[in-house]
Amino acid sequence: MVIDNSFYMRLAIDAAWRYQGLTYPNPAVGCTVVGEHGEILAVEAHTRAGLPHAEVNALQQAYYKLTNDSYILALEKSVDIHTHLLANHNNIFQNCSLYTTLEPCSHYGKTPSCATLISELGIKRVYIGSSDTNAIAKNGTMRLQMSGTEVYSELLEEECNALLYPFKRTLEENFIFFKWAQRLSGTSDAGIISSEYSRRSVHAMRDVCDLLVVGGETVRQDRPTLDARLVGGEAPDVLILSHESDFDRDIPLFHVKGRQVFIEKDLQKLSEYKNIMIEGGASMYAYTHDIVDYYLCYLAPTFGGSRGINFQDDSFEILNQRKEDKDIIMWMKRI
Amino acid sequence: MVIDNSFYMRLAIDAAWRYQGLTYPNPAVGCTVVGEHGEILAVEAHTRAGLPHAEVNALQQAYYKLTNDSYILALEKSVDIHTHLLANHNNIFQNCSLYTTLEPCSHYGKTPSCATLISELGIKRVYIGSSDTNAIAKNGTMRLQMSGTEVYSELLEEECNALLYPFKRTLEENFIFFKWAQRLSGTSDAGIISSEYSRRSVHAMRDVCDLLVVGGETVRQDRPTLDARLVGGEAPDVLILSHESDFDRDIPLFHVKGRQVFIEKDLQKLSEYKNIMIEGGASMYAYTHDIVDYYLCYLAPTFGGSRGINFQDDSFEILNQRKEDKDIIMWMKRI
Repeated sequence: MVIDNSFYMRLAIDAAWRYQGLTYPNPAVGCTVVGEHGEILAVEAHTRAGLPHAEVNALQQAYYKLTNDSYILALEKSVDIHTHLLANHNNIFQNCSLYTTLEPCSHYGKTPSCATLISELGIKRVYIGSSDTNAIAKNGTMRLQMSGTEVYSELLEEECNALLYPFKRTLEENFIFFKWAQRLSGTSDAGIISSEYSRRSVHAMRDVCDLLVVGGETVRQDRPTLDARLVGGEAPDVLILSHESDFDRDIPLFHVKGRQVFIEKDLQKLSEYKNIMIEGGASMYAYTHDIVDYYLCYLAPTFGGSRGINFQDDSFEILNQRKEDKDIIMWMKRI
Repeated sequence: MVIDNSFYMRLAIDAAWRYQGLTYPNPAVGCTVVGEHGEILAVEAHTRAGLPHAEVNALQQAYYKLTNDSYILALEKSVDIHTHLLANHNNIFQNCSLYTTLEPCSHYGKTPSCATLISELGIKRVYIGSSDTNAIAKNGTMRLQMSGTEVYSELLEEECNALLYPFKRTLEENFIFFKWAQRLSGTSDAGIISSEYSRRSVHAMRDVCDLLVVGGETVRQDRPTLDARLVGGEAPDVLILSHESDFDRDIPLFHVKGRQVFIEKDLQKLSEYKNIMIEGGASMYAYTHDIVDYYLCYLAPTFGGSRGINFQDDSFEILNQRKEDKDIIMWMKRI
């Protein structure tokens, strides 16, 4: 195995994918910090909007690894981590390299600018995957170069762009992903499919997405609540695709506080939302075939059941896959 | 992400799984070498019997990384790498750590002993996953400790044991794995399923296994050659499971030089072989259900087809999974 810049960037990319779908309205970003001898000091990701950027999380861990100053580990706010790093770094980062899947931000948004932090810490080399196309955040590279940081762009850019794409879609219009769980046998019927981890992961997605789309038959038969209770999260608005509006309004789905439920014959409502998850089976897959950006598949290594999605001749590119608990979680796009 | 001893061992484990099935009669072993500052110097595996052990491959790469002496990269024989390392190491390894999924060998077999090499290079710390149960190769730990090496055993032992299990089975009796290719939809019919890489990978497996088991219907319908031509390898003996012996003997399967073909009504012939691959579909899966050690699934991210394996209520533990080219390759055991 070659241990090179791509290896370090891949660690950052994989770390970021774990939070894909969970960082909205921010992008999923990962960051690796490597010390002067090539040692990996940190691999971190941005985990949720309002929490520190990936670079700040990584620099926090790297600082601790270099100094053993555990005070920094107790800090949660980005501004506090920035302040502590700037006051105490003593140039320990001056021969370090930083790998980030996205160009460091240059604006003071919810957190101080990462480009400024990296510059002031004197990090020697910054490797960037995707350029920031966000008009407000961009110019991170310029900010870094002005202070003498060596900047290397477009490292694994294609992979980093695939990671960033959902964010770009939310800026342009909206990001629509289709989530399903299935067994190795391709089936999604006949009882619970996924592991506890996977089911919690879906609830975390629901917490962050702003609209959840399901089919009328699913609501009638499964009577799901479609909330985020497994992670103590907020339930998204729900769009039930149905030509009939005869639902049992007593089921919990219709009584979640703060949630709107729409029953519609088409998908026009999607234009009012930004981060949209579709949950469904074969018919929903077919119905939404041409509007879905990414597919998220929870694959349980089991047999059983008899029916699942099998839309003839569709092929996917697996953008990222990982094993969590018992299942494989795959982000894919149709090709 | 925590960058710790387990992280380095996991790199070694993943490197080794890439060659699972290909190292027979040797075990699949992986090795990571980490420098004095925590930098990853090498992650390598044993790739094929007769070629250097994982530790030797890793030390070769680590030496090059530390010295830039490219002479060593041209060496292919284990004995030559040993000799060059011992003559030129200049104590550069004295603060290094080595992570190996299997206790380093202590006997001079096809290659000089790894435990001796590691000792003489003065490597400071050796982390071991599985203990060597091979009566001839064991005592590597003792050899290391006698020379003052710090030895830490049982690091990710369970994962390393799962990696080693096929080798142990070949020592005890034989290792039997069931290989199949399927789409995401769980189907295995209707044309080519796997990517070019996956098909080459299967040929590499055939090259190394000593018996390939297939069903009579497969031979009649698909008229396969079942050789290893995609990797220029040797074709294994073939056992055709069939109650009838009426095959078209003109098909290439029966005319591969050096191959024996058996047509049998049962699996008794398996007791004469050590590394056995079964290729098949639903009926072969059912027939061999109780004798298979591991399952190897090539999963193509596509839809299509209508039939596949779905042995109700079987569950697997995914021992290792990786994406190669377009497909996911999974080693599993039934649980």
